Amino acid sequence: MKTLVLVDHPDLENSIINARWIEELEKYPDKITVRRLQDHFNNGEFDIEEEQKIVEDHGGIIFQFPIFWFSCPSLMKKWLDEVITHGWGFGEGNHAFRGRKTGIAASFGTKREYLSRNGKYVFTPYENLASFATTFLYIDAEYMGHHAFYGAEHNPSQEYIEENTQAYIDFIKYIFN
Amino acid sequence: MKTLVLVDHPDLENSIINARWIEELEKYPDKITVRRLQDHFNNGEFDIEEEQKIVEDHGGIIFQFPIFWFSCPSLMKKWLDEVITHGWGFGEGNHAFRGRKTGIAASFGTKREYLSRNGKYVFTPYENLASFATTFLYIDAEYMGHHAFYGAEHNPSQEYIEENTQAYIDFIKYIFN
Repeated sequence: MKTLVLVDHPDLENSIINARWIEELEKYPDKITVRRLQDHFNNGEFDIEEEQKIVEDHGGIIFQFPIFWFSCPSLMKKWLDEVITHGWGFGEGNHAFRGRKTGIAASFGTKREYLSRNGKYVFTPYENLASFATTFLYIDAEYMGHHAFYGAEHNPSQEYIEENTQAYIDFIKYIFN
Repeated sequence: MKTLVLVDHPDLENSIINARWIEELEKYPDKITVRRLQDHFNNGEFDIEEEQKIVEDHGGIIFQFPIFWFSCPSLMKKWLDEVITHGWGFGEGNHAFRGRKTGIAASFGTKREYLSRNGKYVFTPYENLASFATTFLYIDAEYMGHHAFYGAEHNPSQEYIEENTQAYIDFIKYIFN
């Protein structure tokens, strides 16, 4: 089954890396579905059943977003809060994520070195993403870790952008497929 | 200056502990302002200037919410994403949170013992809240830690609810005032 990449990005026109990632992902239409949350959020609501069916119709799922305040942006959080319902994603009934390969692709504005015990922001990317890891344990998903880009606010080089994009494709190719 | 308690709770009528917390907080109107985000979110938008002014008019600030997927609910995330703007909360210009005492009051549905290396969900509350700690470092706030309630989904005793509520008041009284 294809891998689903759910993207939350409020402003792809000014994206540093997420738009490039999407451009590359879309070269593999028989392996990967890219679905931008903004395109399926109407009048302040998701179509919960449609979102759940999309998950069911795929194998692995990757949550892709730029890091906002060291977590996902609010629309992605709304998706998690509303789509992973009791009886579908956990609790009595279906466990839609059970054994499903799940991952994160996140772009950090800050530099990697700042996110460490000796850095300005002390906490590591792993720690900042812990709430997702816990969620994936809760819903019995098989969390495959995160692919990350760092320093989006620090004028990243074209070389890094390209290398990182290829590494993301490899993450999906070797880990998800 | 008074302490601001910003509350995100989508359904206070069915609250296990947040409504009780609010009831007690409201006994100290000259020390504490309780502000529910739902009451100030109209047509899908916050009034950003009003939200910023409320912060400026207070001393400490506590973010109170039930834990949804091991983090804050999406509306609180939207508040963080949209209200803490460049030039007001960080970057060139004002740093509205600099030195401001900041805390979290969170109710976990799950038991405390599950949130540990030997528990079902492996990651600790501290780890799950790391993205907030990192945010508070980023905006130069003085993070005072979190007050937590555990086991909201496990039929908590009235005694625990009352003890915990008093401990929350003490958290504000001795740490924030």
